[in-house]
Amino acid sequence: MLLASSLAKAEDGYRLWLRYDLIENANLRTEYASALNAIVLERESDVLKAAAYELSLALNGLTGITPKINKFLSGAGTVVLGTPESSPIIASLNLSEKLSQLGAEGYCLFSTTIKGKKSIVIAANKDAGVLYGTFHLIRLLQTSQSVKNLSQQHTPKIQHRILNHWDNLDRTVERGYAGFSLWDWHKLPDYIDPRYRDYARANASIGINGSVLTNVNSNAQILTEPYLRKVAALANVFRPYGIKVYLTARFSAPVEIGGLSTADPLDPAVKEWWKKKIDEIYTYVPDFGGFAVKANSEGQPGPQNYNRTHADGANLLADALAPHNGIVMWRAFVYDNKVPEDRAKQAYNEFKPLDGKFRENVMVQVKNGPIDFQPREPFHPLFGAMPQTPINIEFQITQEYLGFATHLVYLAPLFKECLNADTYAKGKGSFVYKVVDGSLDNHQLTGIAGVANIGNDRNWCGHPFAQANWFAFGRLAWDPTLNSETIADEWIRMTFSQEPEVVKSLKSVMLASREITVNYMTPLGLHHIMGWDHHYGPGPWIKDKPRADWTSVYYHKADSFGIGFDRTKNGSGALDQYAPEVQKQYSTLESCPEELLLWFHHVSWDHKMNSGRTLWEELCHRYYQGADSVKWMQKLWNALEGKIDPDRFVQVKSLLNIQHNEALLWRNSCVLYFQTFSGKEIPAGLDPPDKPLSYYEKLQFPFAPGIRPKW
Amino acid sequence: MLLASSLAKAEDGYRLWLRYDLIENANLRTEYASALNAIVLERESDVLKAAAYELSLALNGLTGITPKINKFLSGAGTVVLGTPESSPIIASLNLSEKLSQLGAEGYCLFSTTIKGKKSIVIAANKDAGVLYGTFHLIRLLQTSQSVKNLSQQHTPKIQHRILNHWDNLDRTVERGYAGFSLWDWHKLPDYIDPRYRDYARANASIGINGSVLTNVNSNAQILTEPYLRKVAALANVFRPYGIKVYLTARFSAPVEIGGLSTADPLDPAVKEWWKKKIDEIYTYVPDFGGFAVKANSEGQPGPQNYNRTHADGANLLADALAPHNGIVMWRAFVYDNKVPEDRAKQAYNEFKPLDGKFRENVMVQVKNGPIDFQPREPFHPLFGAMPQTPINIEFQITQEYLGFATHLVYLAPLFKECLNADTYAKGKGSFVYKVVDGSLDNHQLTGIAGVANIGNDRNWCGHPFAQANWFAFGRLAWDPTLNSETIADEWIRMTFSQEPEVVKSLKSVMLASREITVNYMTPLGLHHIMGWDHHYGPGPWIKDKPRADWTSVYYHKADSFGIGFDRTKNGSGALDQYAPEVQKQYSTLESCPEELLLWFHHVSWDHKMNSGRTLWEELCHRYYQGADSVKWMQKLWNALEGKIDPDRFVQVKSLLNIQHNEALLWRNSCVLYFQTFSGKEIPAGLDPPDKPLSYYEKLQFPFAPGIRPKW
Repeated sequence: MLLASSLAKAEDGYRLWLRYDLIENANLRTEYASALNAIVLERESDVLKAAAYELSLALNGLTGITPKINKFLSGAGTVVLGTPESSPIIASLNLSEKLSQLGAEGYCLFSTTIKGKKSIVIAANKDAGVLYGTFHLIRLLQTSQSVKNLSQQHTPKIQHRILNHWDNLDRTVERGYAGFSLWDWHKLPDYIDPRYRDYARANASIGINGSVLTNVNSNAQILTEPYLRKVAALANVFRPYGIKVYLTARFSAPVEIGGLSTADPLDPAVKEWWKKKIDEIYTYVPDFGGFAVKANSEGQPGPQNYNRTHADGANLLADALAPHNGIVMWRAFVYDNKVPEDRAKQAYNEFKPLDGKFRENVMVQVKNGPIDFQPREPFHPLFGAMPQTPINIEFQITQEYLGFATHLVYLAPLFKECLNADTYAKGKGSFVYKVVDGSLDNHQLTGIAGVANIGNDRNWCGHPFAQANWFAFGRLAWDPTLNSETIADEWIRMTFSQEPEVVKSLKSVMLASREITVNYMTPLGLHHIMGWDHHYGPGPWIKDKPRADWTSVYYHKADSFGIGFDRTKNGSGALDQYAPEVQKQYSTLESCPEELLLWFHHVSWDHKMNSGRTLWEELCHRYYQGADSVKWMQKLWNALEGKIDPDRFVQVKSLLNIQHNEALLWRNSCVLYFQTFSGKEIPAGLDPPDKPLSYYEKLQFPFAPGIRPKW
Repeated sequence: MLLASSLAKAEDGYRLWLRYDLIENANLRTEYASALNAIVLERESDVLKAAAYELSLALNGLTGITPKINKFLSGAGTVVLGTPESSPIIASLNLSEKLSQLGAEGYCLFSTTIKGKKSIVIAANKDAGVLYGTFHLIRLLQTSQSVKNLSQQHTPKIQHRILNHWDNLDRTVERGYAGFSLWDWHKLPDYIDPRYRDYARANASIGINGSVLTNVNSNAQILTEPYLRKVAALANVFRPYGIKVYLTARFSAPVEIGGLSTADPLDPAVKEWWKKKIDEIYTYVPDFGGFAVKANSEGQPGPQNYNRTHADGANLLADALAPHNGIVMWRAFVYDNKVPEDRAKQAYNEFKPLDGKFRENVMVQVKNGPIDFQPREPFHPLFGAMPQTPINIEFQITQEYLGFATHLVYLAPLFKECLNADTYAKGKGSFVYKVVDGSLDNHQLTGIAGVANIGNDRNWCGHPFAQANWFAFGRLAWDPTLNSETIADEWIRMTFSQEPEVVKSLKSVMLASREITVNYMTPLGLHHIMGWDHHYGPGPWIKDKPRADWTSVYYHKADSFGIGFDRTKNGSGALDQYAPEVQKQYSTLESCPEELLLWFHHVSWDHKMNSGRTLWEELCHRYYQGADSVKWMQKLWNALEGKIDPDRFVQVKSLLNIQHNEALLWRNSCVLYFQTFSGKEIPAGLDPPDKPLSYYEKLQFPFAPGIRPKW
């Protein structure tokens, strides 16, 4: 009766990890219901109300009993929420030393006895901390943990934890694979889609505190009065959940909507225009966060159009934002009109000399790797290279290069690989996460950005497991030292099941999934060999495009000798941008980890790999291993039938089937294409592709989603 | 606790009118549970299984008890489903006379005693009829009707009841205001979104039996092999619900995807290409319905590009479809490159001479009115004018000219106004619906098309009340003689509430809503004065565009003397296209109903109207009355707080607020603009607009949804 069940209690994925279904274990339910039978909220604020309501909602769903929300403590089994300011009870608990370590967003969550009554306290300096503590408590309940002797305190390690939406005003989403934009600009500001609040709830539950609403390939219309009213309406929905809104600033806006003849950042009229515009924004959104800016990159206008530097451009906006405590996140993903010999070098070349030239309220936003969100890249050389400048890291949660929304790829290991990379900027232990959390160079202003994978699909992310990447980004933004497995464990328990077999199986699939994807797409350090424009599927044969660095052959450099991009001193020299210790590791064929071999070296097809195979053989084996591993994922998933609700079981089963087909597409395309250079047989034991290379080269995907609109 | 309730049991609108919540009246619940405690399905088919499962789902939700689905009759209180072929029980009931009147899709639904056991029988000649009968029974349960002495039989009056989706392959929807296309082409055919089945269920529940998946402004890619596989996947989901898929055929496809140098319909290679292509389609979709075609209209290619007629074009496709029992719906909405003196005349001029020239499996698809889905139009002069040709009517369910998805406008009265119009083609009583149902000219091939208002919004249609228009279209397609009030009553009870006060209030709002909208948009026969391109909001000032008949001034012809389009013999003569009796009614100022006065006449500002007011005064009064009436709608709605679930209550309240603001926008824009011609004061008692005309003229809506994509 699949049909019946799916409609009656359809697990449509809308609830994300905030599923508050009745706990099956009756003992646990009783324990929770008795420990948490009332909520005390002495003074209300929008944020505290949101926290109390969420807790009430969760308890009602999980235990079947709706706790009272009281203004006074009346019995045992109460949760007291608040700050010393809002709660006389909390003020009476002598928490000042504890709270002094927690900052504006941290919280403590502990069991105690108040006036002889067993209670649980969620205390913080500010309301936002209380909200985060509340979601922490809910997470404990959702994952069946005891709430008997709580004693925890947590503070986010990074200040600005932000989703970047590459959403256009026509609701298309650049690199969006989960439907279209959540923001229904046409119906805003008067119609508030219930999703806006649920979006905010989901973000608050994982500590995300900012949202850049619009695409970095920006449209100046967003800065006009009708759109600012719409932005304000969203900000009003998000505010009780501790989330600030940010926008993208199109650098040429003073010309396009301001009627000026220039956007030169040093022009007094331009400065005045931005000052007034930004003052106006704050009349609509008093706590507006600031701007994310993509300038002089991929055709976007910027300060270089006027022979000014990126610092001139960023400082123009920063000066106007500073009186309102707004910030600028100026993206380092740039390339100019001249095609460089190695695009990997460009951001460093342009930004490194500007270190120290940015205002205090500017962060330079650097992608995790030097090219563009590939399945695997080394960390970006700018990390550690600009000690005088706050650097915020940009990850891509949406799977532009990782199978869109049809591939199960758990991205926490990818995020962690970069965060844990050692820049050696100040000697051993100068990890990227220490650059990002400000501890390496003692910055107060810190940030992390994730390009969202969220759209208006019923399940938000297109793929049920893509939700895990949103979740993981938030959890790592709060604490980059959390490990991938812990996060997966939490998410699986909250989202799918707490049954040990299910948790174990899903965790093993999730943790292996990124490496599997690297293998069937871009093993051994290959990169940027995907389909043209839409970036869907393989396209190692892409060449002869308007720019060489938009082609695949530019990056893989396959020839009869071998394959790979020589970035050592003998090649592009990109490796010189890293600290000497890093250079040392990557500079020789022997010391370079095989997973990045072809990123840094042009290697002979006959090179002997650690496995004893030649490079050609190893490449083939990796591709085949990747595709075979998807079969393994399918096997593990299929064994869970009956233990997963039928809706999501069928959905993921279908998606894994697509993933396997596409893994074969990648494998066959790449092996056949590279074979034209190696001239070697596919190794024994590997079934050769059943179609010729020409078949794969001819495949067309005219309406693959997520393409940049042509305005 | 709005927040809590909205997430726990959110009325998100996804279930449409198929809401199977527990019936509150315990007596009724017991009656139903006892009368319907088991389902007998003797032999299975996909359609019969769908029927049985749906009934089981409904009974489970409504009564709390899941009925067994048995192969044998075992006790009283059983529903027996089937055809004489599939059910020995039904074969034994001597229904052949009854069934002989029911055709392929009709059904009978009756109470009886079988082997001494009280039973309910749903019998039909074909499985589809059983499915429709099942949904009929469910509707009875949802609307609290007795199932004690059932004795009904129903047959659809129109053969092809079809939704037309103007959905593009990139998932944008032309004139779509409910998000984006349901069809996720990228993930098809391997991923089957659960919505596809729910879409089919909703359609089957109201008798819709066909779906044109793609935009009439078509892309030939849909006819290529990868897309046909995707189409087949959708067809497979729809088939158990009695729904055939249709596509749009781009006339130039033989050139664009076939490699031919011409698409001339008389060219043997072109004929051969279509024959092969259509044979190919049937290998993927054995019950493929056929094509809807827009040719030689608004820049679309067509037979006239080769100096052939529309009949030549339609017959080309019809001949290739005929062996497979496929049909062609050839749209009469055409206009050529020369701007006509009156576009209202063009379809008639081009098609009337072709009567009798079309193959037997061609219908000419005619919009309800001669211009384009305006808030009010007279019926199209082609109805009754082509007796030798099956004419299927095309309505627009999506509210392109009726406030997008933010205005509550119940369209059944608009549909009925046209269906009940008397063409006098064969004397008095030659109603449009008799043309459409084939009875007037004795056609077997009949059809009705509705341009869908469905998108991927969580609630499918954007506005909760827009769902009523989908519902009403289906119900009227099944039986065009049903009245608007009955349909509204059913829908309200199934969708919102059965409480008498709620039903009464909502019904009065719904039934008045279309006339209210006419008043604040286009009273007295005005038409086509909306905003340029996006068609959002008022634009009576639109002029100087590439074609005169794309402007507003072409249609309203306001000048210092008066306003309106003279379509009498003194003017464009469009009225001559109607039967003499119709001409007589519309040809004089005295006999022409005021609601169409300015459609047919250019009338002096000082003309005395029935109200005793001058035309100018009446026009102003209508605009003000329209806007004021939205306030009345708001008042009625707001009085229902607490009687409507909080989610939808707040949603509709917000939407009515938008509707009121936009009604004021229409009113103020039009009154101020037409005042520049009349030179008269706004009548006493009506508050003049608070902003000047220039304010309204300058408003820009750069990202209004639903615009045709520029490929």
